[in-house]
Amino acid sequence: MKILVINGPNLNFLGIREKSIYGNRDYWALVGLIEQKAKELKVEVEVFQSNIEGEIINTLQRAYKEKFDGIIINPAAYTHYSYAIRDALASLTIPKIEVHISNIHQREEFRHRSVTAAACDGQIAGLGFDGYLLAMEAMVNLCNKS
Amino acid sequence: MKILVINGPNLNFLGIREKSIYGNRDYWALVGLIEQKAKELKVEVEVFQSNIEGEIINTLQRAYKEKFDGIIINPAAYTHYSYAIRDALASLTIPKIEVHISNIHQREEFRHRSVTAAACDGQIAGLGFDGYLLAMEAMVNLCNKS
Amino acid sequence: MKILVINGPNLNFLGIREKSIYGNRDYWALVGLIEQKAKELKVEVEVFQSNIEGEIINTLQRAYKEKFDGIIINPAAYTHYSYAIRDALASLTIPKIEVHISNIHQREEFRHRSVTAAACDGQIAGLGFDGYLLAMEAMVNLCNKS
Amino acid sequence: MKILVINGPNLNFLGIREKSIYGNRDYWALVGLIEQKAKELKVEVEVFQSNIEGEIINTLQRAYKEKFDGIIINPAAYTHYSYAIRDALASLTIPKIEVHISNIHQREEFRHRSVTAAACDGQIAGLGFDGYLLAMEAMVNLCNKS
Amino acid sequence: MKILVINGPNLNFLGIREKSIYGNRDYWALVGLIEQKAKELKVEVEVFQSNIEGEIINTLQRAYKEKFDGIIINPAAYTHYSYAIRDALASLTIPKIEVHISNIHQREEFRHRSVTAAACDGQIAGLGFDGYLLAMEAMVNLCNKS
Amino acid sequence: MKILVINGPNLNFLGIREKSIYGNRDYWALVGLIEQKAKELKVEVEVFQSNIEGEIINTLQRAYKEKFDGIIINPAAYTHYSYAIRDALASLTIPKIEVHISNIHQREEFRHRSVTAAACDGQIAGLGFDGYLLAMEAMVNLCNKS
Amino acid sequence: MKILVINGPNLNFLGIREKSIYGNRDYWALVGLIEQKAKELKVEVEVFQSNIEGEIINTLQRAYKEKFDGIIINPAAYTHYSYAIRDALASLTIPKIEVHISNIHQREEFRHRSVTAAACDGQIAGLGFDGYLLAMEAMVNLCNKS
Amino acid sequence: MKILVINGPNLNFLGIREKSIYGNRDYWALVGLIEQKAKELKVEVEVFQSNIEGEIINTLQRAYKEKFDGIIINPAAYTHYSYAIRDALASLTIPKIEVHISNIHQREEFRHRSVTAAACDGQIAGLGFDGYLLAMEAMVNLCNKS
Amino acid sequence: MKILVINGPNLNFLGIREKSIYGNRDYWALVGLIEQKAKELKVEVEVFQSNIEGEIINTLQRAYKEKFDGIIINPAAYTHYSYAIRDALASLTIPKIEVHISNIHQREEFRHRSVTAAACDGQIAGLGFDGYLLAMEAMVNLCNKS
Amino acid sequence: MKILVINGPNLNFLGIREKSIYGNRDYWALVGLIEQKAKELKVEVEVFQSNIEGEIINTLQRAYKEKFDGIIINPAAYTHYSYAIRDALASLTIPKIEVHISNIHQREEFRHRSVTAAACDGQIAGLGFDGYLLAMEAMVNLCNKS
Amino acid sequence: MKILVINGPNLNFLGIREKSIYGNRDYWALVGLIEQKAKELKVEVEVFQSNIEGEIINTLQRAYKEKFDGIIINPAAYTHYSYAIRDALASLTIPKIEVHISNIHQREEFRHRSVTAAACDGQIAGLGFDGYLLAMEAMVNLCNKS
Amino acid sequence: MKILVINGPNLNFLGIREKSIYGNRDYWALVGLIEQKAKELKVEVEVFQSNIEGEIINTLQRAYKEKFDGIIINPAAYTHYSYAIRDALASLTIPKIEVHISNIHQREEFRHRSVTAAACDGQIAGLGFDGYLLAMEAMVNLCNKS
Repeated sequence: MKILVINGPNLNFLGIREKSIYGNRDYWALVGLIEQKAKELKVEVEVFQSNIEGEIINTLQRAYKEKFDGIIINPAAYTHYSYAIRDALASLTIPKIEVHISNIHQREEFRHRSVTAAACDGQIAGLGFDGYLLAMEAMVNLCNKS
Repeated sequence: MKILVINGPNLNFLGIREKSIYGNRDYWALVGLIEQKAKELKVEVEVFQSNIEGEIINTLQRAYKEKFDGIIINPAAYTHYSYAIRDALASLTIPKIEVHISNIHQREEFRHRSVTAAACDGQIAGLGFDGYLLAMEAMVNLCNKS
Repeated sequence: MKILVINGPNLNFLGIREKSIYGNRDYWALVGLIEQKAKELKVEVEVFQSNIEGEIINTLQRAYKEKFDGIIINPAAYTHYSYAIRDALASLTIPKIEVHISNIHQREEFRHRSVTAAACDGQIAGLGFDGYLLAMEAMVNLCNKS
Repeated sequence: MKILVINGPNLNFLGIREKSIYGNRDYWALVGLIEQKAKELKVEVEVFQSNIEGEIINTLQRAYKEKFDGIIINPAAYTHYSYAIRDALASLTIPKIEVHISNIHQREEFRHRSVTAAACDGQIAGLGFDGYLLAMEAMVNLCNKS
Repeated sequence: MKILVINGPNLNFLGIREKSIYGNRDYWALVGLIEQKAKELKVEVEVFQSNIEGEIINTLQRAYKEKFDGIIINPAAYTHYSYAIRDALASLTIPKIEVHISNIHQREEFRHRSVTAAACDGQIAGLGFDGYLLAMEAMVNLCNKS
Repeated sequence: MKILVINGPNLNFLGIREKSIYGNRDYWALVGLIEQKAKELKVEVEVFQSNIEGEIINTLQRAYKEKFDGIIINPAAYTHYSYAIRDALASLTIPKIEVHISNIHQREEFRHRSVTAAACDGQIAGLGFDGYLLAMEAMVNLCNKS
Repeated sequence: MKILVINGPNLNFLGIREKSIYGNRDYWALVGLIEQKAKELKVEVEVFQSNIEGEIINTLQRAYKEKFDGIIINPAAYTHYSYAIRDALASLTIPKIEVHISNIHQREEFRHRSVTAAACDGQIAGLGFDGYLLAMEAMVNLCNKS
Repeated sequence: MKILVINGPNLNFLGIREKSIYGNRDYWALVGLIEQKAKELKVEVEVFQSNIEGEIINTLQRAYKEKFDGIIINPAAYTHYSYAIRDALASLTIPKIEVHISNIHQREEFRHRSVTAAACDGQIAGLGFDGYLLAMEAMVNLCNKS
Repeated sequence: MKILVINGPNLNFLGIREKSIYGNRDYWALVGLIEQKAKELKVEVEVFQSNIEGEIINTLQRAYKEKFDGIIINPAAYTHYSYAIRDALASLTIPKIEVHISNIHQREEFRHRSVTAAACDGQIAGLGFDGYLLAMEAMVNLCNKS
Repeated sequence: MKILVINGPNLNFLGIREKSIYGNRDYWALVGLIEQKAKELKVEVEVFQSNIEGEIINTLQRAYKEKFDGIIINPAAYTHYSYAIRDALASLTIPKIEVHISNIHQREEFRHRSVTAAACDGQIAGLGFDGYLLAMEAMVNLCNKS
Repeated sequence: MKILVINGPNLNFLGIREKSIYGNRDYWALVGLIEQKAKELKVEVEVFQSNIEGEIINTLQRAYKEKFDGIIINPAAYTHYSYAIRDALASLTIPKIEVHISNIHQREEFRHRSVTAAACDGQIAGLGFDGYLLAMEAMVNLCNKS
Repeated sequence: MKILVINGPNLNFLGIREKSIYGNRDYWALVGLIEQKAKELKVEVEVFQSNIEGEIINTLQRAYKEKFDGIIINPAAYTHYSYAIRDALASLTIPKIEVHISNIHQREEFRHRSVTAAACDGQIAGLGFDGYLLAMEAMVNLCNKS
């Protein structure tokens, strides 16, 4: 089982950027936790980050070509307006889970709406780095079912 | 550690109601899974269901009086308009996670907005019964941190 | 054939409350007319009233358990915001007709929108107590067809 | 007692047009049912259909000149924007009932709003051809009262 | 002269809930102040609290049956969406005053709108527990006038 | 100088229709006043009325073909939604004045907006039958200037 | 008969300000035309201009104290937001006519809405300086009727 | 193969009306081009124009009765509000293409929305008279496929 | 203790203006009641009225310079749009209470929103002249606390 | 004559992605059809695809530098929010046609609005791959005219 | 070269009012900096402040009469609703720059919109007192160009 | 002191693109002016331009890594929807100024709103190339203060 984790713009600045919202741990700590969880779950994982909307789409298309079994995506700010990422997600039939580190419902009005979530199976928000790990557990279940 | 799971209106009709959205398993199957997970996690759990908005508030207030450590709540339809439940959640300082069985972002427009999520720590949606079990795992972590 | 008639908040104050809108006859006059019509149509009827949203949902669920053949509901003010009652109606597959005594389209803006009607088969508004009796006739036809 | 039944645009295409919404029976079947009901109720009835907004207004004005006692109108698509038909209805003081064959609340957003209903006494929607017959019964009662 | 004071959801958690907004004194302190003021004004007073929307309506209807002379109501979160409480208030012709402890205009957008105030004679907001006492004074004047 | 006066739907029911808004005098009284004013101003006048949107457009196009010098139009209810009449007005380069008998700003919300006024030179509203006569005076001035 | 003509902000800059919209003639030309028309109609007239919202209200109140028979007002930009001028107009029961030199429906969106027109008897727009003269004629008729 | 071309209100004034938007050529030039193209494509064509909404519906219904193979329609201003024409289009299952001479996206806000396009197969806008000819080519392909 | 009472536009026309809304007593009756109450409460009071928005701001600034202890303000129509008065209120740190004689929630839509209330401590509406007297009592309490 | 065809995000997944909407043929089939049509029309064509918004802008700028004669663009999801592509289109004065394979008016609400169409000469939607070929024919005409 | 600097309501309370937003320096410090800059730039400057909307308009008109070469205006709260000041600005053809001390985009929603900026040449916001000095430099350039 | 100037999409087409809005001078003229100003101010400057949203974010992140002291950004069209650039700006704590060459308040509605300005210290708009130079002066002051 191969899972692709995609992180959107500015997530590589975790630990640098607004610590009161995102916490002190940096991006590589997150990647480390994901890889450790993958080992526990005995799945392969690839973690990808880009600030460029179109490269996230390219990578979603690569998931199709390279036969990934599931996608965990945190589109960050693109969550709120990227219909292009939404279309790319919709073109894939494998399980997809959207993750947000912070509780987007407690922040600015524009962050309450997700245009990408409708093209995913589910969404986890506000649970910090744990959200990714829970998504990985859920993904294994979803893949086993489908 | 004591966790309170609160289910809102019509959830007791799982397995009866709109199976294409909520699946075939009934409410007691859900309760069984939650209780089993509680054993695994070595936490106490109480599962409560009511169709009455005010009784959900009463129960949230009971969580304060009976010193529960965390709350997992699926406010069902009340998610979208019950500022009263939101206020009750906001009055509690213990960890709170909102759960939805279906992906509310794929359904009618009015289900895209949650007025209660802003008063919780996080939200899990679209992952079926699994959502409750993941929330329980996350809750144990949140409680241990706080 | 068993029909359940459900009346929402404040309808028990008919004849007391705003007579210029709802007329002079009281709630028991309405119940009497419904029961008399039931006799004419040779159907069983139960008339229920509550001011509590959740009890209306409980009663809708009882309709399922007690195998009623059809539901006539006047959700009164809940018509305009109770997604919880809408969900309860949607979980039932028997015929359902929404009734309003006054013409909701001639009153305040907020009364022009019904969130519950979409979960019913049809709606009758503005025809006074007659609306209930016409709904009963229509219900007999609907039940005979289904 | 003379009742005028007015049908708006495309209703003459019943049985041809979108059968999943409007059923298989054609327009003349509807007219037949109305005329039969009129006999039962011992009232005169005239059934009129036009696709032209202004001819519907002309016919509403004729109702005044020819001293009809009541009007049953299905403005079809004009329901949602014809303030001109609304004004024509408002200029008549005899009883008026709006009828819709389908449940307009289950269809496209724009069909949820009626600009003509506010100028009628009541509205019946979603009960199929039966809606017209129930409206005729209600009309006899309304005329007898006024 | 008999005055009924009705408190809505979560007000029984005063002193527990968000002290920065509502202050440190608890619900029983509020009840005590109201009862003391009643003695000064030489009026009877009954103070009622419920988290359940429908029970608030039941109590409003009881005010009619038990011939109360005036109502002071703090509908709390229900202020912003309960058309059912609004209808119950509108069905009573005795004086009614709406009270809010905090200044609802300084808080979240959704708290700026009151759907119940239009069915009251007046509204007092932002003056803390004093708001209730001022409302009692005003009520005595209103009752004397009517 | 030839002036065309066009009256829209339901204006032929003046004196019959809602007298509290439009007054007691009937449509022919209006036509008489207009014709008398035309004599005083020494201009030719033709007064046209139709309930049919498209016939109003046909008549506007006739104004071009028959070389009328100015148009006075009361589009009645079509004022608020007929982009087709707006386009017909916009296709004519002669002076055009919109008239309303009642003050549309004091009536329902939907009557506050005119989609046709932008294609006219000016608008007179709320001055009763006088509005037409003032428009004729203004028209003579406009035609003399152009 | 005494008529008060009130001109709002920037109208004293006619002939200076945006000539493509308001024409070449200056403010004193307008005043001259109004005074000449007053003579023809054998009425007294006072013409007042101010850029200050509150002075316009003061002057409207003076109209009450000095027993003017009618008011012609061009509130200029205040038309679109001055609820204070609206209230002042509403407090006067004598006839009031609103005038605009340009056709406000052909200009920016915010100029399409008048908050003051609802407190006047009628409105004339887009007919240039003539609008004032027509309003004076109409005013004489209104005063004679009332 | 028989194609019906329907032109809505004011299109018969092409070459007269607003030449900067629609060009200099008149309506008969357009009809000529369409008929010539029909010869080239070896299809029968009928070109119909009306200013009357309901006659456009009548003609759409005639297309059903007279077994036309496809419809090309330019509803002109009705594009933006005629739900009645939309319903008529939806009742026909043959291919339908909407055409606009000008680029409706470059004009007034209200022209950006088409309520009729959803009931057609496709839409061509902004390509002048060519739009009709391209639609005819596309129609031949669509008819051959279906 | 020195209290400043500020009354906005048109309030000097109390007793003249719309008596059905504001009652029969005139402005000087109101001033008299306020001054009498001040004596009872043993506080100094100054009552100021202006129709000019900017003079109200000047007076609010004077309150700072002359060391008033509290402000009671009825901004009348300015309540609904004067962000300038809001800013002036926000620049003062002494207690401020907004008063409205009528129940603004029962009147036109635009009166439901207050832009100034957010810069005050509290608001009293709908209790007639009594509102000012209650505000004075509340002010004494607020000043004593601060 | 040199034409540049630009395809936006996810179009390279034609035949893979949502076949019920876009059909079975893949992206290279589309490119083949376009190149074949170019030969027939005796024009040069270059077909470009990118998922990256900014690369589409780079390519539009290249069209200027390399002196292309016309642009056919399907901005896909970027159609609905890319003001940056709109600006790039607006900076070019050569003919530009927007193409959509599916009928965007029959799909989700957000697809009904195009922010890029206003910067093109015309738009073709809903005619499948044919849309591109028709656009090429239209482009040849546009280029010959300009 | 003569420059007029106009400051709107409450700016004279700088240093007193909300220091966290506007800083500690008072209004006279600002005036001093402006006058010093004028000397450096060798231009005449007049600094004017008023809380009264209409006096700001009077002063803008005075700029025309006294032949000022440029205007720098901080309309403060009037920025967000004074169409009257906008009209006054639009009537002047000399260069005009709008200045805001704080970053209006970081504050309340209503401060994000400027109705006056469209009538100026440019806007500077969020740069504190420096904003005025930069505007003066820019003004000298603008005046030299025009 | 090191300043980074970032220019968004299409700005490299200055002098080519819409000269009536942006003027005749080309992009390199702008860069030249900026570099000359840097010399005068004795600061280092780097000027960067990209059409790709994500590369702008990459460059903003580089500013952090390479320890720039301040950022001047013209996000061009991205100003109006790029929450991703907003987040990148928000993650940096050094001074940031947004610049627009044209007055965005005089152009299309969508250009009136900036989603990025809230994450900057200030904004300069409408002052042409001068805007950049003024921003550089302001930046030096901001950097000296912080």
